[in-house]
Amino acid sequence: MIPEAIQKFIAAFSRLPSLGPRLVTRLAFYLTGLPKNDLRELESALSSLKNLGRCKQCFFLSNNGELCGICSNPKREKSIIAIVEKETDLISLEKTANFEGQYLILGRFGDLDALETAQKLRLEHLKKRIISDLHGKIKELIIALNPNAAGDYVAQVIAQEFKNLAEKITRLGRGIPTGGEIEFADEETLNQALKRRS
Amino acid sequence: MIPEAIQKFIAAFSRLPSLGPRLVTRLAFYLTGLPKNDLRELESALSSLKNLGRCKQCFFLSNNGELCGICSNPKREKSIIAIVEKETDLISLEKTANFEGQYLILGRFGDLDALETAQKLRLEHLKKRIISDLHGKIKELIIALNPNAAGDYVAQVIAQEFKNLAEKITRLGRGIPTGGEIEFADEETLNQALKRRS
Repeated sequence: MIPEAIQKFIAAFSRLPSLGPRLVTRLAFYLTGLPKNDLRELESALSSLKNLGRCKQCFFLSNNGELCGICSNPKREKSIIAIVEKETDLISLEKTANFEGQYLILGRFGDLDALETAQKLRLEHLKKRIISDLHGKIKELIIALNPNAAGDYVAQVIAQEFKNLAEKITRLGRGIPTGGEIEFADEETLNQALKRRS
Repeated sequence: MIPEAIQKFIAAFSRLPSLGPRLVTRLAFYLTGLPKNDLRELESALSSLKNLGRCKQCFFLSNNGELCGICSNPKREKSIIAIVEKETDLISLEKTANFEGQYLILGRFGDLDALETAQKLRLEHLKKRIISDLHGKIKELIIALNPNAAGDYVAQVIAQEFKNLAEKITRLGRGIPTGGEIEFADEETLNQALKRRS
């Protein structure tokens, strides 16, 4: 009863994260009601994602695999590098406008909560860069991974591997979020907040 | 800092209903990590929506403007017609597998909560069809619009206009949803449930 084009759309798009079949179904019917030009605009926006490459230094997205805007910016401090899991983590940190260093995008954790081959290659790449271009040692390596079991484990591994390549290895602060309430903080958050009180 | 292709994608897709900018941003970065072939599949699924037309009888979606699967099914009762607002309402009713009649898709209500020109044309189309193809009178017209202020108002208008064209004009039952709890039902729902007790 549902036209094949709609079924195909629902099947393809509901595989994407955060898009459930109900939302995608509603979306499909909404899209069929749009002027063809609006549909073409969406198609072209989707299509142009294919042309993005990755920065050969930090693995953030960039055009045609050139250096990204951050790595090519001479004002950024090359000797302070934050390792983040995902592009969106980088964007959140950039929004603070309080970080002057550069990044390494590690790539999403898989189901194993351990470093995958692609992630290991990126870490190797950073090691080599520190050794050949950054005098063998940077000022600070910030391991900006999520404060959960997988992030903690991987952070330990990375800290071990980079211990001779950075003067200081840090992680982001942990505790009660600003605006949060002690009463509603979970036990582990409170533990961390107590441990790191200052 | 965010590559232009990503920005374009976010701008285009966050205009769609239920897709906020945060979700679309996450989606954009997720998509850039997919193999190019998966991206092409999504593009083609989006693109093929452009080829859908509307059934010339009930205005549901169909290929190339032919009759839809329901209107062309000889087993469906032509003399019982349900007027629904949207395609997804039709799909929900079809899922009950308890409705043997045909439909008229009225089209989405705009901001005015009154019938728009396109909706009036579809109602005129149905009137003409009842007069010329269905002996001037059908057995039942079910006004299956949402039970809210806009739906109630439009239902009244339609009932008035079709009063001589259908032996019976009905609306869907109203009351406490199956599995719902009296304690948590809002006042108007309880009112309707009381009024329509049986």
